[in-house]
Parts: sequence; structure tokens; C-alpha cells
Amino acid sequence: MTCPPLPHHPDAPAGTAPQARPQDAFRAEDERFVARLHAELEEFFGRQRAVLGGISADALPLLDAVVALSAGGKRLRARLCYWGWRAAGGDPEDPAVVRAGAALELFQSAALIHDDVIDRSDTRRGAPSVHRRFESVHADRGWALDGPAFGVAAAILSGDLCLSWSEQSFAAATTTAPGGHRARAVFDLMRSEVMAGQYLDVQGEVAGGGQDRDGAVQRALDVIRYKSAKYSVEHPVVLGAALAGAPEAVLERCSAFALPLGEAFQLRDDVLGVFGDPAATGKPAGDDLREGKRTVLVGYVRTLGSEAQIARLEDALGRPELTEEDVEELRSLITACGALGSTEELIERLSGEAFTALDRLGADVVPMAALRGLATAAVRRSS
Amino acid sequence: MTCPPLPHHPDAPAGTAPQARPQDAFRAEDERFVARLHAELEEFFGRQRAVLGGISADALPLLDAVVALSAGGKRLRARLCYWGWRAAGGDPEDPAVVRAGAALELFQSAALIHDDVIDRSDTRRGAPSVHRRFESVHADRGWALDGPAFGVAAAILSGDLCLSWSEQSFAAATTTAPGGHRARAVFDLMRSEVMAGQYLDVQGEVAGGGQDRDGAVQRALDVIRYKSAKYSVEHPVVLGAALAGAPEAVLERCSAFALPLGEAFQLRDDVLGVFGDPAATGKPAGDDLREGKRTVLVGYVRTLGSEAQIARLEDALGRPELTEEDVEELRSLITACGALGSTEELIERLSGEAFTALDRLGADVVPMAALRGLATAAVRRSS
Repeated sequence: MTCPPLPHHPDAPAGTAPQARPQDAFRAEDERFVARLHAELEEFFGRQRAVLGGISADALPLLDAVVALSAGGKRLRARLCYWGWRAAGGDPEDPAVVRAGAALELFQSAALIHDDVIDRSDTRRGAPSVHRRFESVHADRGWALDGPAFGVAAAILSGDLCLSWSEQSFAAATTTAPGGHRARAVFDLMRSEVMAGQYLDVQGEVAGGGQDRDGAVQRALDVIRYKSAKYSVEHPVVLGAALAGAPEAVLERCSAFALPLGEAFQLRDDVLGVFGDPAATGKPAGDDLREGKRTVLVGYVRTLGSEAQIARLEDALGRPELTEEDVEELRSLITACGALGSTEELIERLSGEAFTALDRLGADVVPMAALRGLATAAVRRSS
Repeated sequence: MTCPPLPHHPDAPAGTAPQARPQDAFRAEDERFVARLHAELEEFFGRQRAVLGGISADALPLLDAVVALSAGGKRLRARLCYWGWRAAGGDPEDPAVVRAGAALELFQSAALIHDDVIDRSDTRRGAPSVHRRFESVHADRGWALDGPAFGVAAAILSGDLCLSWSEQSFAAATTTAPGGHRARAVFDLMRSEVMAGQYLDVQGEVAGGGQDRDGAVQRALDVIRYKSAKYSVEHPVVLGAALAGAPEAVLERCSAFALPLGEAFQLRDDVLGVFGDPAATGKPAGDDLREGKRTVLVGYVRTLGSEAQIARLEDALGRPELTEEDVEELRSLITACGALGSTEELIERLSGEAFTALDRLGADVVPMAALRGLATAAVRRSS
């Protein structure tokens, strides 16, 4: 379980003593939180191993799949939650924020498991996706009937189990934290929004080609907002702050920072989905095109491209058989018509909004430095 | 939304005044609970409609699918929870038990949606299953790409949303109820067990034919226990009692009644899955055979049948193309080798255990009459 490096931010204020420099203090504290998070997840999985093993040893592969997937995460959501909590004055030693962080990571694992079934993705974080993992078990054991169908069934159930575990961990957090009731409202909204956003994404894939071109960028931004920006960034920060008992005005300031940051984060993801290095992202480049995702990149091609460019892209979108050469040709097309440039400009503008709002958050120097560091890592990343 | 009739039980004690007769009192109270449950669900869905509609009107089909499915339920789990609550002395007017009941019904809807994807079932409660419903939307609107894949994606997301809603309703119940903490432990265990049980069921379908014959009945009973008996009957009753603040000894007495009842309930379901009237069950008869379910009926054929009978059944199991004539021939085989009779005997024995344990529960006369009525309906039903 690795924790990505946090860049030094040039604007981070210099401290007075070596151990008090915020960019060092937040780094050590961030690492300490991630270590506690891993210990919490390990203990949690240990308890679930006892529950499932008590039913039947045959049920343990469900847990093993979740544990393996969970090991690869960057813990971005949990860490944003922790620093939201700290920005709102939460006690760094309180176990409630560790449990809330574990809940966010478990929710993310569940979402990835089901997402990969929906997108028919073969790999995740450089390893086989959960349904492919179970399909391999089926083949290795020489079981009967339909192997891929068994893989999908087992992945749906692994994801459901993981969703329940997420909730279990969250409920434990809310019983002791100062703002458990308010945090629950954030968690509930987060789940409804991300699932609705996922649905809009899938619906856009099948209906998008027939929808008006002028609205293509806005529809893609709506999907980003609900499926990703609120879920991956805004809600974790606000949830942490709410859990610590922050008043509504503070929660609003957290949103003003975290929502544009989340949008920039997801736009970066969309760029990486087409232009990223597979060795760094752990997913084949161009899979977003093969899946027919109606990203902002695609939206800009529909707004800025020539009829021929639009027709070429529309014809290619959603074709699983696209070769590396096809993808390379589409990359050139997306760059040539200005869609990549417009997306990069949008990332810059949203990042700017986020950093300006962060300056107005007015939290202590260590959480401020941490949020600035995480924000920088989120929008400047290559994986 | 209909509520199945509760039979008069011959052993129900006769009351002193017409309005005090337990078999009438529980019936009126049961109906009143179901009415409050429906009002709660309606209000809950209304709030979710505002949340989803606020994201995009395009997201509302997710809710519509859940509402349509939910309308057809018998509310068995919610009612068992209510009567467990009342048996433990819970206040009939407390909204917490209504919210817990709604949580169980929402969980059941989520489980059915995902179950139908896993089992590739076309119908549920006499209407198209959720993935088929979304596949029809895809066809009606003339959308692009793969219609069945869109149906599965939308159903996975509907089920996930419904799981989250279940949890949301349950969390609201635990914040005010006397025994919220203990009830949470039951709810958490219930979810892990049912998903593990589902997995064992699916795994049994692909691996079962190669496993030893002597263990076939026991393996089928394990699946029944975790996938169904604990989930559909034991946990709801115990959860209601726990929520009301019942001590452990009372929870154990509830289990002693509800677990064998749940096993008998599921065995009845398995019999109906092969021998039931499709008009009453809302599912094509024989679908359990087409899906290759390793039920106790199948386990008994493997224990009691001739080599020829076992070979014929093994060859037929899991073939979606089985005709009504094939199913009729398999019914005769299951009856002739004694598998049906042995299953019916087991249902009788487990029902007997349940009713004996119920007599020892020692609750008030109205909840006792209600639990006896629900138990009778569960094991003697035709749908």
C-alpha cells in the first residue's frame, strides 16, 4: 500500500523550526493517518474474515478479492476527509475520522468493482478486475456452466458486500464523532449522487451520439460533477469537516474549494484516459474511447471539430476492437481540433478557482498546507 | 400494495371481548403497520425523487424502477421485524420500527434487483425484472450500442442506490430506538451473511455437480440457512426485538423460533420454484431447474435417486432451454424418487420446531398470535 508523494508547494509558508515547517508537518501527519487507516482496514478485514469463514471457507474469495483491490489505492478520499476534519479543528487522534476514511475507501472499492463490470474492464490498478479474477478461478478449478457469468455474479456480490462494509465502518464513525448526524447527510447524498452520475454516464454512452452538439460539453461536465468531482473530492473534504462538527459556513467554504478541484481532478483523469501512460495509470490507454465515454474531450471535439473529425470520432466511440493505431489517430484528432487544449485550459481555470477558494478557507497552517499539497497532486498527476 | 391474508390459527387463544380477540387485534395492528410502512416508503421515495431530480431528470428512471419493484412486496420481513419489536415490548407508535421495516424492504428490493441480474431472470413479481425493464427503455428510445448491457448496468446501479437507501433508513431508525447499537450488529451480520449465502449458491451451481453426493443435502441446507432463513426470517425478528432493547436471552429465544421457521419458509420456496403455479408465484415454474439451483430437492434426488434419475437431472440442470415438458418430466422424477416427500417431511419437522420454540417465547398475547399467524402463512403459502 503506497502513498503518492506530495509535492512541495512554492507558496507554502516557511516554518520557524525544522519540525514545525508545515510542509513537513503535514507530510508526517498525512503518512501517520494513512498508516492508521491501513491498520483500521486490516483489522476490519480480519473481523470480516471471521464472519465469512464462520459461514463457509468457500465464501472467503469474496473477501480476498476486496482486500487485493483495496491494497492498490492512493487513499485520496480518506486523506481529503482527514484534512477536512483537521481544517475544521478535529482531534488528530480521534479514531472516528480513521473509520470514516475507511468507509470512503471501502465505498470506492465497491464502486470500482461494479464499475468494471459495467464497463467490461479487464484490468484495474494493473491487476485483473474482480469479475475477471473470479472468471479465472472458475477456469482454474474446471467448474461447469458459464465462466464469465460466474465472474460477473461474484463481482456483483463482492461489490455489494463491500458497500455494506463501507456503511458499517461509517456507522461506527458517526456514533462517537461530534458531527455524526450532519456527516451522515453528506455520506447519504454522496452515494445517491455518485450512482445517479454513473447512470447518466452510462445513459450518455448509449444516447449521447443522438443528442445536440452544443450541449455536449455541459452534459459531460454534469457527469463529471456528480459521478466524480463531488464524490471524489468535495464530499470527502466536507464530510471530514462535518464529522468534526464544523458550522455550515465552514462547510460552504470547503465546498467552494473542493468542488472546482474535483472537476479539475476528473478532467485530468479524462485526459489520462486517452493520453496517459498505461504503465503509470494501470489501464490500457484509449479504453475511455473503446467504452464510448462521453467525456469533455469528446464534447469539445463535437463543438470544435470539423464534420469529418466529428464523424470519425463518432464512428470510433464505443468500439472495443479499436487498435493502438486507431487510438493514436484519435489522439491526433483530439489535439488538432483544439479539444485537448480547451480541456487543459478548463483544468487550469478550475484549479485557479480552487486555490483561490482554499486561501479563503482560513484553517490552521498545517491543514492548509496539506490541502494545498493534495490539491496540487490531484490536478498535476500522471496516474 | 397488498398484504397477504393471515390465516386464523386453530390454537390461537380466544379473547374475552370481540375487540380484544388476539387474532383480530393482531390483524388490525398488522394492517396498520403495513399502512404506516407504505406511507414511510412513499415519503422516503419522494425525498429521493427531489435529490435525483435535482441532479437530472434523466436520473429518475433509477428511482422509478425501485418504486415499481417495491410496490409488489408482501412486506414479510418488515412485518416480522415489527412483531419482533412488539414481542420485546416495543411501543407500537414509535416511528423507529417503521423506518427499520422500510430499511429491510429496501434491502430486499436491492437484493432482488441484483439477484435477477445474476440469475438472468426475465420477470419478477409478474413484471419484467429491472434489467429487462431498462433494456426495453433502450429499445423504445432507439438508443445505440448494446441494449442488454445497458439493462445490466442500469440494474446494478439501481440496486446499489437501493442498498444505500436501505442503509439510510436503517441509520434513521437506530438514532432514536432504545437498542439501536445492538440492532446495527444484527443488520450488519444479516447483510454479510446473505451476500455470502448468495455467493455459495452461485458457486454451488458451477461447482456442485462435481461435489460428493452425500453432502448435497447439507450443502443445500447451508445455502438456505445463510441466503434465506437467517436473512428473511431470523434476522428481521431478532432485529426488531434488539431495536426495542430486548436482552440477549430474549434475542436467543427469538432465534430459536425464527431460524427453523426461515428454513421451512425457504424449503417451501424451493418446492414452489419447481412445483408452484406460475400465476400465483409470478415466476415461470421450473426456473430453478433452468438456473441450475442446487436446492434441497436436487440434493435429495442425488441421495435417493437411481443412477439413471441422477444422470437425467444432472444433465438437465442449468439448461435455459428446458421446455415445459422437460420440467414436467423432472417433476415426476423428483416426486417418484422420494425427494419431494423428504423435503415436505423436513418442512413439517422444521415448522414443528419453530412452533414449539414460539410457545416458549413468552411474549404478550397479541404479538404471539401475530408471529403464529405469519409463521403459518410462511410455511403454508402457495406464492
